[in-house]
Amino acid sequence: MYRPEIKVLDCTIRDGGLINEHLFEDKFVRAVYQAVSASGADYVELGYRASKKYFSADKFGKAKFCTEEFLRKITEGINSNTKISTMVDIGRVEPEDIPLKKDSVVDMVRVACYVKDIDKAIALVNHCADKGYETTVNIMAISTAFEPDLEEGLSQLANCPLKAVYIVDSYGALFSEQIHYLVALYAKYFKPKGIEVGIHCHNNQQLGFANTIEAIRKGANFLDATIYGIGRAAGNCPLELLLAFLKNPKFKLDPILEVIEKEFLPLQSKMEWGYIIPHMITGILNQHPRAAIALRNGHNKDKFADFYRSLVNNDVELT
Amino acid sequence: MYRPEIKVLDCTIRDGGLINEHLFEDKFVRAVYQAVSASGADYVELGYRASKKYFSADKFGKAKFCTEEFLRKITEGINSNTKISTMVDIGRVEPEDIPLKKDSVVDMVRVACYVKDIDKAIALVNHCADKGYETTVNIMAISTAFEPDLEEGLSQLANCPLKAVYIVDSYGALFSEQIHYLVALYAKYFKPKGIEVGIHCHNNQQLGFANTIEAIRKGANFLDATIYGIGRAAGNCPLELLLAFLKNPKFKLDPILEVIEKEFLPLQSKMEWGYIIPHMITGILNQHPRAAIALRNGHNKDKFADFYRSLVNNDVELT
Repeated sequence: MYRPEIKVLDCTIRDGGLINEHLFEDKFVRAVYQAVSASGADYVELGYRASKKYFSADKFGKAKFCTEEFLRKITEGINSNTKISTMVDIGRVEPEDIPLKKDSVVDMVRVACYVKDIDKAIALVNHCADKGYETTVNIMAISTAFEPDLEEGLSQLANCPLKAVYIVDSYGALFSEQIHYLVALYAKYFKPKGIEVGIHCHNNQQLGFANTIEAIRKGANFLDATIYGIGRAAGNCPLELLLAFLKNPKFKLDPILEVIEKEFLPLQSKMEWGYIIPHMITGILNQHPRAAIALRNGHNKDKFADFYRSLVNNDVELT
Repeated sequence: MYRPEIKVLDCTIRDGGLINEHLFEDKFVRAVYQAVSASGADYVELGYRASKKYFSADKFGKAKFCTEEFLRKITEGINSNTKISTMVDIGRVEPEDIPLKKDSVVDMVRVACYVKDIDKAIALVNHCADKGYETTVNIMAISTAFEPDLEEGLSQLANCPLKAVYIVDSYGALFSEQIHYLVALYAKYFKPKGIEVGIHCHNNQQLGFANTIEAIRKGANFLDATIYGIGRAAGNCPLELLLAFLKNPKFKLDPILEVIEKEFLPLQSKMEWGYIIPHMITGILNQHPRAAIALRNGHNKDKFADFYRSLVNNDVELT
């Protein structure tokens, strides 16, 4: 039977935009917003709210900045009960760029950070909560976190005005037993405070969906997914698999299948994501995908064995 | 630390051949045999030993029949410690077509059957064991088996001369808790008799690798995988992910990455397998992939939402 506390968040535009500098056409973003709304997912993340002080609007698309003007254009006229989220990165947003909730269509601000930046994340969370938003913290690259530092951060986050704190397997490196361990660790700090545990998986080892299920089994209630698994490098947990798995009758699969058919199949000739061997390799080696992304942009994009050997040999040199 | 009892079986040619009627070039089969041998995998399954009484040699490739002549041509001159397996289907092989082990390069015969045919599988297992082969039984479509019938079959198989009995998730429909349940059920019957539990997963829900890991965690020691996940419809657990996961230092990843690069990337323009939405749909509905395969061979191959609705509506009519 289904667990009503579970919230599904679609981050197709936000994470998918990491492939193409968020240069999506408005029409595409609207199609995603419409499909996700019709699917009954709880949240849709329409991009980052980055500051134009740090990123050029000539180089990056509108979903990188998520101005109110952009968000209203995307959502206008579409019937939706899905809440809107935007993400902010530590050091890439000016707090004064964030309007008051009462002047915004945004419901939730998610603060992405590494363990070392949890102090800064807390300041930003407090700022956004004061302005009236729901907030989460998404701790990235969790598969390389040093545990005492992580625990110190978790203990401080437990006192913040948060809806959820996320386990983010940025490298797609974790296995089920590690997911179980981390969900239990997070739950120890957060469940007593009424803060939910969230999960955001990458799919380098084809474990994005599987690890999301394992997190659910251990009590995670905020679940990230993307349509057709789109997302940086290997991509994410596919929303269509997650909705089919969840038993809550409010979720509908058809709108997601329709938007895959109409919008995502054509996109595959322009953008690359999914089970691509160099991304698999950074996953098994628990590394940032940047080396694989660089390889895929060059002339040797299919030199899988050489790429593997180069990464393994670098590791040896560093020890 | 690694479990030395674990045996990895590559069934690239056998299961992959279900996509193309086993019409592989000898050169390709040799490349696979060479790569799998170099990877240190324990077994390689080079096809079916079907009878030409039931299948035309004009329509099907040589790996459908696995004559000694074919197998010797494939393996000749390649250094290998990997044992050779062939599969037989109930009702598609004549026992007299199987030579004595002493006259064959084959080490193991795997008998594939549904629960209803376990009696016939036992007769064939006894026949092959008498001829000197290692044997397994692979019980297909386990996600639709009626449990009392399954248990009766397992109790009879426990008295046979078997290396392993496989859980075969033909429809790619199972989740981790079901895998745990089935491995425990099989282990109850087989471990006391020294027969191993095997696992063969399909990848319709991107759970092929994940479910193989879950089976390992619960004690399964015979593991099927295919290079780059090739196999009927959505394909199988990818061998490269499995070898990277297993800690036994005898396994090498490089040869598999090399053969993907050289032989499997070009193959993708000629054969289709992997995460394809119609195959996902039959997986979530716990159905045979035949409807999805038919769709993919027709003009409406990308009509995902219509296909989903047609299957769901048929279900309603049947109840």
